[in-house]
Amino acid sequence: MTVVDIHTHVYPPTFMELLRSRTTVPYVRTFPDAPDSSRLIILPGEDDPSTPSTSRGRPIGPEYYDIAQKIAFMDAHKIDISVISLANPWLDFLPAEEAGAAARRINDDVDSICAQHPGRLYAFGTLPLSAPAEVVVEEIERLSKLKYIRGVIIGTSGLGNGLDDPALDPIYAALEKYEQIIFLHPHYGLPASVYGPRANEYGHVLPLALGFPLETTIAVTRMLLSGVWDRFHNLNVLLAHSGGTLPFLAGRIESCIKHDGHLKNHGKTEGRRTVWDILKSNIYLDAVIYSEVGLGAAIQASGSDRLMFGTDHPFFPPLEEDVTEWHSVNANYAAISASFADSPTGEQDVLGNNAVRILKLA
Amino acid sequence: MTVVDIHTHVYPPTFMELLRSRTTVPYVRTFPDAPDSSRLIILPGEDDPSTPSTSRGRPIGPEYYDIAQKIAFMDAHKIDISVISLANPWLDFLPAEEAGAAARRINDDVDSICAQHPGRLYAFGTLPLSAPAEVVVEEIERLSKLKYIRGVIIGTSGLGNGLDDPALDPIYAALEKYEQIIFLHPHYGLPASVYGPRANEYGHVLPLALGFPLETTIAVTRMLLSGVWDRFHNLNVLLAHSGGTLPFLAGRIESCIKHDGHLKNHGKTEGRRTVWDILKSNIYLDAVIYSEVGLGAAIQASGSDRLMFGTDHPFFPPLEEDVTEWHSVNANYAAISASFADSPTGEQDVLGNNAVRILKLA
Repeated sequence: MTVVDIHTHVYPPTFMELLRSRTTVPYVRTFPDAPDSSRLIILPGEDDPSTPSTSRGRPIGPEYYDIAQKIAFMDAHKIDISVISLANPWLDFLPAEEAGAAARRINDDVDSICAQHPGRLYAFGTLPLSAPAEVVVEEIERLSKLKYIRGVIIGTSGLGNGLDDPALDPIYAALEKYEQIIFLHPHYGLPASVYGPRANEYGHVLPLALGFPLETTIAVTRMLLSGVWDRFHNLNVLLAHSGGTLPFLAGRIESCIKHDGHLKNHGKTEGRRTVWDILKSNIYLDAVIYSEVGLGAAIQASGSDRLMFGTDHPFFPPLEEDVTEWHSVNANYAAISASFADSPTGEQDVLGNNAVRILKLA
Repeated sequence: MTVVDIHTHVYPPTFMELLRSRTTVPYVRTFPDAPDSSRLIILPGEDDPSTPSTSRGRPIGPEYYDIAQKIAFMDAHKIDISVISLANPWLDFLPAEEAGAAARRINDDVDSICAQHPGRLYAFGTLPLSAPAEVVVEEIERLSKLKYIRGVIIGTSGLGNGLDDPALDPIYAALEKYEQIIFLHPHYGLPASVYGPRANEYGHVLPLALGFPLETTIAVTRMLLSGVWDRFHNLNVLLAHSGGTLPFLAGRIESCIKHDGHLKNHGKTEGRRTVWDILKSNIYLDAVIYSEVGLGAAIQASGSDRLMFGTDHPFFPPLEEDVTEWHSVNANYAAISASFADSPTGEQDVLGNNAVRILKLA
């Protein structure tokens, strides 16, 4: 049995340099009251001086950039292959004129990291989305020729107006043409106002547990409503965190579309591909959902041939010292095992066979 | 077999008067380009003149306030009992000094409507949440003595700062003391920015399909994180739309709590009641989710003894003329039927027996 982790992040050396050179979000810094602790600040407000020191971004150490630690983590958790990806916020924040070169540098860096561990590492590439569309399209073509690249990771912002922006069409067309899957991953969350005045008391829980999956759900629903998949029948998207909440809400989304007077008057309620169509033929889901309840819905929505194991490493590390096996990883292993108690084949598919087939890892 | 609809709204005559008397959201009005069509405007921006006429609020007719139409709808869909509730935005918008009297007037109005259809109608009461806490507590006590009232419907705003506001504790204490279940229902959705610049093209789909369930999920997670259920072990909450997305995200919520350094440092990761504890002992879910996928997760999260059939009438009406059976209702019936293909008892529980037992309707 092959175990493949398709949701596992790296900040390669070239990207760390970039983060350390900056003084605004996203960046890596220390604080005067904890000068020995580098913190990764990726969300607005995480560096607010009034934020408790333990809530200021997150500690960043070699587990984020030292590939030997990735391999050790894989070994400790019986993971044969990892498909690594740059973590958020990718290159979304770069000025247009810097993005293309940065993407080439980082993608080459990542590809060469994979080459140092043949058979164990593949990667999703990063796109220079703030650059002109033709630069993005060129990078997609270039990525398709890099030996270890198996798709691209992107956030929900697109060119700045979301993934339902028609200006993305040339990029979607290129991804379809070069058969590059999108790994769609959240970063921006929701406006802080929705969490209320006491949100700081709850650490990162609300933005991380809810903001992230809700952002993904909104992004993919906007893609659906704008007809992206009516125009690009072969555009494939792997959704982080088992689709955000898409499997659970798919029925409500369809009901709201079918009952919308405005859409009906514009001829948009019929003749379109439904969310169920997309879930079964364009969307893939990771299995990073930490419960049998959520995983069951994901399996039922997309099919056990479309789910792929992931860890979200190096995020969700154990808080205890000297723990080798991560609770977060074991929670996902346990959910998969319980969901397929009667189907060892299904379990093996989700743990690795699907990834090998879908991402052509063999 | 008894079929009980626990999610079904009414704007009783006293509330319609209030809405018609107003000129800002929420209110009922006509527009110059469609003077014969009364529109219910309940969300900010729905009355923006630039909004397409078919997206301005929703048409409001007697199905919203004529109880004979409710009974006819029940008969057409084989619903024996309805537990009616005021639709959003309830009385959240009233000045403090008006809220108490308005709540008493509307609750008496609703109770007398139920009395005209004995055995067929019960109701959730409405709280004057903008009034001082003692006025709210008095109304809770008064509601507990009204013959047909079986709990209260509230939104996610609470006293204006959300349901994790400690100032709600006297109100939660009163609800617990008088054994009044909360029917928690969304209204405010999410800030419009999350839907992007093209949202108007999609009618009401994004705020309705996503904003509503996400709002509910955030509200209930804030209650959990603030320890409401650690303080009020017997506070019961019925969540609209099968919990928003709570069943699907419960695993991620728990994982984020367990892995939060800030919560751990403050001793808040252990010794608390978990989301799973609450789902099995304080939370009830309606079965208004329009798919077997979502319903399956809801059943697995809370148990088939805690789910209750609902329709969301008069919302989600068929767009075609002369349709007696509503697609939206049949979608929920079908999901329940499919989920309990091997368990007629479970199906009967969800369709009505649970509601009869939990809400003491017999």
